[in-house]
Order: sequence, then structure tokens, then C-alpha cells
Amino acid sequence: MTAETFRTIWLDADDPSVVKIIDQRLLPHEFKLHDLGSWQDAETAIADMYVRGAPLIGATAAWGLYLAALESPESVAMHAVADRLLAARPTAVNLRWAIERIMRVVDAHAGGELADEIRRDAQAICDEDVEISRGIGEHGVALLEAIAARKPGEPVNVLTHCNAGALATINYGTATAPVYIAQQRGIDVHVWVDETRPRNQGSQLTAWELAQSGVPHTLIVDNAGGHLMQHGLVDIVIVGTDRTTRCGDVANKIGTYLKALAAFDNDIPFYVGLPSTTIDWRSCDGVAEIPIEERDAEEVSHVHGMREGAPTMVRTTAPGTPISNYAFDVTPARLVTGLITERGICAASEDGLLGLFPEMRDRS
Amino acid sequence: MTAETFRTIWLDADDPSVVKIIDQRLLPHEFKLHDLGSWQDAETAIADMYVRGAPLIGATAAWGLYLAALESPESVAMHAVADRLLAARPTAVNLRWAIERIMRVVDAHAGGELADEIRRDAQAICDEDVEISRGIGEHGVALLEAIAARKPGEPVNVLTHCNAGALATINYGTATAPVYIAQQRGIDVHVWVDETRPRNQGSQLTAWELAQSGVPHTLIVDNAGGHLMQHGLVDIVIVGTDRTTRCGDVANKIGTYLKALAAFDNDIPFYVGLPSTTIDWRSCDGVAEIPIEERDAEEVSHVHGMREGAPTMVRTTAPGTPISNYAFDVTPARLVTGLITERGICAASEDGLLGLFPEMRDRS
Repeated sequence: MTAETFRTIWLDADDPSVVKIIDQRLLPHEFKLHDLGSWQDAETAIADMYVRGAPLIGATAAWGLYLAALESPESVAMHAVADRLLAARPTAVNLRWAIERIMRVVDAHAGGELADEIRRDAQAICDEDVEISRGIGEHGVALLEAIAARKPGEPVNVLTHCNAGALATINYGTATAPVYIAQQRGIDVHVWVDETRPRNQGSQLTAWELAQSGVPHTLIVDNAGGHLMQHGLVDIVIVGTDRTTRCGDVANKIGTYLKALAAFDNDIPFYVGLPSTTIDWRSCDGVAEIPIEERDAEEVSHVHGMREGAPTMVRTTAPGTPISNYAFDVTPARLVTGLITERGICAASEDGLLGLFPEMRDRS
Repeated sequence: MTAETFRTIWLDADDPSVVKIIDQRLLPHEFKLHDLGSWQDAETAIADMYVRGAPLIGATAAWGLYLAALESPESVAMHAVADRLLAARPTAVNLRWAIERIMRVVDAHAGGELADEIRRDAQAICDEDVEISRGIGEHGVALLEAIAARKPGEPVNVLTHCNAGALATINYGTATAPVYIAQQRGIDVHVWVDETRPRNQGSQLTAWELAQSGVPHTLIVDNAGGHLMQHGLVDIVIVGTDRTTRCGDVANKIGTYLKALAAFDNDIPFYVGLPSTTIDWRSCDGVAEIPIEERDAEEVSHVHGMREGAPTMVRTTAPGTPISNYAFDVTPARLVTGLITERGICAASEDGLLGLFPEMRDRS
């Protein structure tokens, strides 16, 4: 997955009216490409989670606006599409970031082919994201190298939650980027992969992409991390984020907060890998301010798997069982050891973030 | 489930060579009774989790020894059977407690029908367990009444993990006993039910028995509890335990520790309902001393559910995914607000427990 030639979203080389994605709902059982031929396809892909992961959601929205411009490049229509795409999922701030970036192109447009201009910027968002992920990896790998130096001959045990991997970005991932770079540098690294109920992004995506890349890993249920930490089996936790406030509060997949608490209780470093595009400079108190998406009960009551070689869905609950399904939670900054960004590692605080991104001082 | 007439294990009234259990592996999809006709059947039922829950495991072992005595009442054979039953599962201390109790009957036996003597004691273990559970409920309900008094017109929100319900005991349950008694007293109580991966005892057993009893409840994934607590949606956590040390460390289903951390972080009371038979007076440091069972990887990789009306098993992971599956974790006493026993509520400490059980002062 870390080969430069492989990406999670791209414009079809033969048909520039088609954007290609991986239908991530089918992994690990089936690797299937899916065509986006309209902005509505992009909206569906985001809302129904063909694609997921904050950076990839943002990139998909950018390509959705490109597809909209092919069809109807008028500004009014483009703004209506932008509103629809923005509403596809509420928590990841990259969606807003990417849409606002493309809409600046739309609003500044003065003749020529709008779709061409958007295409260049959507492509730039993807290319930049790969560089950003690589930057996160290169800064974050220092943490793993330091642990490896302390325990020669033993693997560095990383625990991660959900999929903040190559599949969540354009390539490399955020939380996984330090792991992939560590592997390239010959560090003996092993990843505990949280299953990540209800959608099982850990067992279905993270385990799959680590296996593809040959990174040693072990799947665990979400309940297991605390026990492993109590017994010295985790050296560091690295997760991604869908939105991090300027004060360092981290919204990420539901259950992340529980792992942060366990890491804190066991004196294990808890890091968050994030591109600066995931920072919400407008908010500070994440628990109070970040909207938490509630998703369909069926994500909890039904499980997708394989039976006798065929994709099969089963219902695990009794019919009519009342279900609540919050998709994210917020880890307070006090539990976060540090934020790994493309510009370096900083404290999870306004001072920490502004130290790396001083240009945001007046905008936050 | 709380009707006195309904139990989880009983001697067949028509055939005293058969012990009846519910095959809990099939719930909530199918309610099916299963016959134990030999001690080997009892061993299988415990090891393969036809029955589970510390008190019910103990009772099943007691009835297993009864079935063994019917077949071969010699002391040597009985001790061999006791060793086999004791090895069926390592963590729940009730198994040891019940076997030791029955083996005292065996060792003291001096003529007459040994099986009859064991039958009386196995029956007594079950009858006493019902009274113990009711006692836990009557002491614990005071906690719920106090919360109800503070928020009139609103439900008391209890969060529980796994199934420490009627299905885990002979009746009433341990963690659920205060809930059932509260319901009987007209208190408006609502239970957040942790799904409890990997075996889904929450979604498959707790949700089922609460629905049977008409107790309002909502199923959530194990990852969700921290978020709910951050947002004031949980008033109290009550769980069961498979073994609690004399110093108050609590072994319970994997993931319990994470919920205790979240409750502590949000200043929410965290209680453990337990019969005194679950106290391991011989151990103090639970993290260091309690053996934690590792179970088959297939519990994680495969999910049992229903598809088009038929029980169906699906594999959710890619073939060959490495998996680790610890069944329990230990919540340190410092995170436990109190222990709810049949004699009252005490601090999770040696002093607290010896205050309620002074007769153990010389034995611990």
C-alpha cells in the first residue's frame, strides 16, 4: 500500500469523467474498484462509507466537485453541490477544508474551463496528502526508533484503533505512516489492531493493509487494549483523528477515548497522527463543540462477513433490540502525549499547535 | 426471568439422571434446553460455554459431580472428575468454590447414597444462589433509589458490561439484580447494554433477558460507554465479576477495566455486584495473581447470527489474520466505588470485605 504507484482515489487515465475509488465496504473479502461518475456518486460514497478516513473523505469531496463542474459549472449549482457534500458526514473537518479550498477556486474562476481548474486542485490535494502523510511518518518514526533503542531484540508494540492507514488517506496513512516508515528502516515493529466495532475498520481494513505490506500485527477486540497495557504488551498508542481542535482535543472513532484513558493509567505514550488539514482552528472544547455523528442501528445489529466463499450478512441481535450508534468520541487533550503532524511533533495544546503553525495565530 | 419458577439449571423432575440447562450459545435466536447426562456433558457445557457466568459455572460443576456420583461414587474417581471440572475454565473462582464444597461432602461420606447427598448440596447451592442474588439486588437497589430521588421524572441510566444477569446465575443475576428489584419497585430504570465482544454476551444475553423482563434498555458497542459518560448519559455502572480478590481487585469480562477508567474519569460511580462465593480470599493483587483465560481465535474471527431465519456463522476477518483473545481483565480496586454483596455494600478493600465477612479474617 505504500508503493507510490498505489492510491486510494484517482482520475481514470482513460476517461476523465470517471474517478476511481476502492469500495472499502467489501474489504478484506473483496478488492473491488468503484467508479464515481457524478457528484451524487461521490456523495453516496462518502455517506455510505465506500470511502472513509478524514483525508480521503476530503479528497473524495474535491473530486465530487470536479465531477459537478463537468456537468454544470455555474457558481450557484456548484455551491448547492458543495452544501450537499458538506452534509454527507458531520465530524471529519477535512471535508469542510477540502470543499472550502475547491470553492475558492470556483469563486475566483474567471473564464476558461472550471472543471480543469478544479481537477488540478483536486489532484494537488491528493498529491499534497501523500507528502503530508510521509511527513507524519518521518516525524513519528523517531518515537518508534527511540523505543526500539530501549529494547533491542524485541519488537516495538504499537496499538492502533480504527483505520488511520493508507486506506484512510491517499497513501501511507496518518497513524500508520510511522509504522510503514519504521518497517522501511528495518525496525522490528508489531501492531495491535483494535477490531473497531461496529464497522470493524480494524479487522477489515487495518489488518488487511498491514498484511498487504507485510507488517506483523495481531487483531484484538476493542475490549482488550487495557489488559494488554496493564501487562506491558503495548509500547505506544498511535491513532488518527477526524477533527482535532486548536486546543488539542481529539475526535476520533468511538472508543479512542477509552484507549487514551488506559494508556494514561499505565503511563504509555498516546500519540495522534494528523495532517494539519484535520485541525479545526475554530473550536477548542472538543467534547462540547464537535458534532458527533449518529449512524444507523443496522451497523451494530448486522455483521458483514464471508460464509462458504460468499459475502454474507447476519443479524446478531434479537429483532427489535433498541440500539444507539455514536460514531466518534472525543479524547481530551490532557490524555494526549503529543500530536504528530507533517511539520513535527507538538504538545496537544493551542501553544503546541501554534508553535508548528504560527500562520494560524490570527485565524484561530 | 425473575419469576421464582424459572431457573437456568435444574434437575429433571421426571428423570433424576438428567440435569437441564439452557444452551446459552443459541440465544437470542433460539431458546433451547440441553440435557446433561454425564459429568463429561457438564465439563463440555462449561468449557464450550453452553453455560457461563461465575455462579452458574459453579452450580453446573456441582451438578456435574452429582452425575459423576450416579455413575461411579468411589472417592478416587470423584477426585479425578473434580480435577477435570476445575480445569474447564480458569478464571471464575466460583468453580473452585462449588467443587470444593461438594468434595467436602464426598470426603465426609460414610455410607448411604453419595449421589443423594451431593444432589441435596447441589440443590442447596442453587437455592442459596437465588437468595444471594436477591440480597445483592436488595442492597444495590438503594443506589438506584438514591439516583432516582435526585432526578425525578428521568430514568436512572445504568451501564453494564457482559452478562451478569439472571442467565449468569441461577436467577436475578448479580449486576442486574438491583435493576430487577428497582423495576419491581416502580423505579424508572434504563440499561445501556455493552455488546461485549467477542462473544456478544451483552447483545445476545443481557439484551435478551432484559427484554424478556420488560426492562428498558439500549444496546451499544463496547467502544461507546466513554462517550456516553462524557455526556452525562450514564448515572452508574454496575458489572459482575468472575473473581474478586480480598483486596478488592475485580476480574471480569475483558473490557470492564476500560469502563471503570471512564467512570472514574467522569466521576460516575462504578459498582460490582457479587456473591461472596466469587471472592478469592487467597489472592490480593489481581493483575499479578489472577489467571486470565485465553480463548480460541475463532471467537473473534467468526460471528454467529441469523440470516433469512437460519442460524448462520460468518468469518469477518481475512483468512490467516493473527488474533489474540484474552477473555478477562482486572479492574484495580482504586477504580471501584463499591462492592455490592449479599450482606451489604462495602469498599473494594480488604477492610471493606472483612467488615462484611469477619469470619474470613483468619482465613485470608
